[in-house]
Amino acid sequence: MCLLVFFTLKITESVEIPSKPNVVLIYGDDVGYGDLNVYGHPTSWTPNLDRMAREGLRMLQFYSAAPICSPSRASLMTGRLYPRTGVYRSPSSTNPTGLDVFSPGDGGGMLLSEITVAQVLKEHGYATGMVGKWHLGIGEQGEYLPHSRGFDSYFGLPFTQSACLSDINPVPPSPDHPGYCFLYRNSTIVSQPADIRDLDAVYVQEAKEFISNHQHEPFFFYFASHHTHRPQWASSRYQDTTRRGIFGDALAELDWSVGEILSHLESLSLDSQTLVVFMSDNGPELKDIETGGEQGPLKCGKGTTYEGGVREPAIFWWPGIIPSHSISESISSTLDLFTTIVSLTGATLPNDRATDGIDLTQLLTNDTTAIVRDRFFYYSGVYLMAVRYHHYKVHFWTMGSHCFPPYPDQDCWDTTTLSRKDPPLLFNLDHDPKERHSLNLTEYHSTMETILKITAEHNRSMTLGVPMIGKLYNNAKFFPCCSPSCKPRPLCCSCSNDIF
Amino acid sequence: MCLLVFFTLKITESVEIPSKPNVVLIYGDDVGYGDLNVYGHPTSWTPNLDRMAREGLRMLQFYSAAPICSPSRASLMTGRLYPRTGVYRSPSSTNPTGLDVFSPGDGGGMLLSEITVAQVLKEHGYATGMVGKWHLGIGEQGEYLPHSRGFDSYFGLPFTQSACLSDINPVPPSPDHPGYCFLYRNSTIVSQPADIRDLDAVYVQEAKEFISNHQHEPFFFYFASHHTHRPQWASSRYQDTTRRGIFGDALAELDWSVGEILSHLESLSLDSQTLVVFMSDNGPELKDIETGGEQGPLKCGKGTTYEGGVREPAIFWWPGIIPSHSISESISSTLDLFTTIVSLTGATLPNDRATDGIDLTQLLTNDTTAIVRDRFFYYSGVYLMAVRYHHYKVHFWTMGSHCFPPYPDQDCWDTTTLSRKDPPLLFNLDHDPKERHSLNLTEYHSTMETILKITAEHNRSMTLGVPMIGKLYNNAKFFPCCSPSCKPRPLCCSCSNDIF
Repeated sequence: MCLLVFFTLKITESVEIPSKPNVVLIYGDDVGYGDLNVYGHPTSWTPNLDRMAREGLRMLQFYSAAPICSPSRASLMTGRLYPRTGVYRSPSSTNPTGLDVFSPGDGGGMLLSEITVAQVLKEHGYATGMVGKWHLGIGEQGEYLPHSRGFDSYFGLPFTQSACLSDINPVPPSPDHPGYCFLYRNSTIVSQPADIRDLDAVYVQEAKEFISNHQHEPFFFYFASHHTHRPQWASSRYQDTTRRGIFGDALAELDWSVGEILSHLESLSLDSQTLVVFMSDNGPELKDIETGGEQGPLKCGKGTTYEGGVREPAIFWWPGIIPSHSISESISSTLDLFTTIVSLTGATLPNDRATDGIDLTQLLTNDTTAIVRDRFFYYSGVYLMAVRYHHYKVHFWTMGSHCFPPYPDQDCWDTTTLSRKDPPLLFNLDHDPKERHSLNLTEYHSTMETILKITAEHNRSMTLGVPMIGKLYNNAKFFPCCSPSCKPRPLCCSCSNDIF
Repeated sequence: MCLLVFFTLKITESVEIPSKPNVVLIYGDDVGYGDLNVYGHPTSWTPNLDRMAREGLRMLQFYSAAPICSPSRASLMTGRLYPRTGVYRSPSSTNPTGLDVFSPGDGGGMLLSEITVAQVLKEHGYATGMVGKWHLGIGEQGEYLPHSRGFDSYFGLPFTQSACLSDINPVPPSPDHPGYCFLYRNSTIVSQPADIRDLDAVYVQEAKEFISNHQHEPFFFYFASHHTHRPQWASSRYQDTTRRGIFGDALAELDWSVGEILSHLESLSLDSQTLVVFMSDNGPELKDIETGGEQGPLKCGKGTTYEGGVREPAIFWWPGIIPSHSISESISSTLDLFTTIVSLTGATLPNDRATDGIDLTQLLTNDTTAIVRDRFFYYSGVYLMAVRYHHYKVHFWTMGSHCFPPYPDQDCWDTTTLSRKDPPLLFNLDHDPKERHSLNLTEYHSTMETILKITAEHNRSMTLGVPMIGKLYNNAKFFPCCSPSCKPRPLCCSCSNDIF
């Protein structure tokens, strides 16, 4: 027994951070702060994510950079606030902030001048692969797809799976349901409409093969799940398996994917060389009620810059490096992934542009209690809606989204339009995570002064990219079609491929 | 290593449940479902409760029997729905359901014909002790106090600590702040007004001494904390120590108490012979906003029969018997403690009365995934407001409480009066823990039929006790006073005793 204890201690103390660690990034879709069991949901079934948290580091103040898909993913990939990357729409009366996502008729995507984390790592000698939801554009020649943005390989639906199901019902697609569900391998459509019933299993298989194939070299793999975006669906193995219903089934299948990836890394003895990260792109969809997500103790959800819109579950797992049962109370963000990965791998940050990330290396490898970030900027399109500084948050603008009556909080409703807060609203998020009690600005005069100062500094540093959403919109021309010359598009865009 | 593994397995498999295990019951005050870090709160600091959950069993569908203090404690002590125990007020126009608590001018208490778990265990050869908040009456001769209801020893404030502080400010009392803060040892006031600055430390010391003194015989100890009832306060050691502010400080001190008790049991090697339970009396106080509690993903809070009013954190810890990292999705309740403790200890259930508990022994000692309860009855005073059957909940009546505008959900407001729901509201709590989406009764016709049937059965089995709250109210006569002959009462009731 003594020998064993000594041996164990020796292992723990002698571990060194690998010079080129692997990184696996698992990204949920619309998974809210309160959706995982380990973040307090009473009927979710997420044993693998719970295990990941138990064996690793769970973040309590972690932010996605945007309250909806495309801009959130732009920031994740670049480490830059998304207005810099062009992932917004030109503001108009119907969309005053410009917050939006790419649609299949968009010819553009995230600005090609942007540098993704995959590009940096590929240049640094990493194998890079991706499956799943990209949502940063396709382009007529696939020039906006992952395969053109630093990923050696890509397999997946570049948009949400909504086009692959009948409306919001979790019904698998059929040949009668054509066109809108295009599955890519690299820059080529391999199935349209794709049958997504077993898509998760195929994604997991792709991930395992990628990891196995690159086990002797450094790799970066991005697993962008379609769960738990509406409409909810799960493969037959997960249908009707959870207490939470179809949302729970979808989440359980995502959780299964996580477990498969962790086990595969362990089976290849790659776990101590691989940082695995789980996070989500934005807050929960509240309009679906029973089949939507859960923000837990926060206010509002997807589409808003209240906490429920952007504060996310985030778990870092790295056995031997990150101590088990760790919790971080530091502010941190998807924006920090780029900077952190570049730092951990010894790659080089692009020096010709602003980056908005903080290096989390110290937090991950040395001191999980470190407070590494003191501020966060909440954007909706090109509007800087709110600013967090330490535990204070100021709302300059508010707007509801993705939520309808009879949801009890009118602030969240889709019909609650953009509204300037003058004077601004000030909250103490540590005391009041639900943003219920606006503090007296006279009493908090110096706090407001400081926040106004850092806001002004930030505004000076902000340069908007050209707005790419809607810029090249032409459904007839750009809608992805596996047989481009067929007519009438997109109804004729049908190519089966027995990929499952 | 092989030997060690064998040895470890052998221990695990050979453990037998002690024939007369000790029980330590730790009861929080107004701690909500979302208040602990392990239940999802982002800024609470509860390392010991988190540890208790990690090493034991965390309940996800656990109910207190009432949405406020006195009735909840009556059910905890007796295993009976509180209307049977007399712990309600005669309904009136100002209090239509009769939900209420005892006040210091009440001459009565929980009906003396009730049998407490302490009585049963004392008769079964257990040493029984208690510190803290009783709230089931005092009586002119102390006949309603713990010391007369089965506890060998009692030390504490029988009511909340609100009278011991200046209004809602966490200011310690002074001789200028007389009368209302009476600290008892057994049936005698030992300090009035008591200085509660170090009350937690003294309670913990009492608990440790009790445990040490009775380490060689079976014991039952009830630690009824005053935290986190309003007004929030913490000793100087815990003031300004948490991100969450004064609520967090108060909760951290409760958490410290839990840690001290667990460590003390371990230091005496009593941990495998002792079931430790943490639970709370009712949901969070919402009217205090920044200094109130948190219901997490549930609706409304204290005083209501929505989930936030009665669903509670609950953790069972029993090293060697309850597997670590366990989670229970079974419905269960404070009502079940009486029945379970009687069963575990081999004592005998009173056979002359109805009990409302379920025996959780199988769940605790054999299979933490067991589903042991299929229904729960939500009472407010004498009104059966709602019924849960499996994952369905029907509201026959609703009422807001302990909550004011601008809290966004009007259903929770104090001004939202008792309202009959005809037709009743039906929710699927597994899918919709926030009770947002009322199901179509036509579609769920057979579910409603079943619930109406079990409700009718239940109503036939229900016998109300005499309403004891307010029955013998006489402030001049019954208000506790350490020098009963002094005048004018209660201002003259001042007796210092250097107990700290």
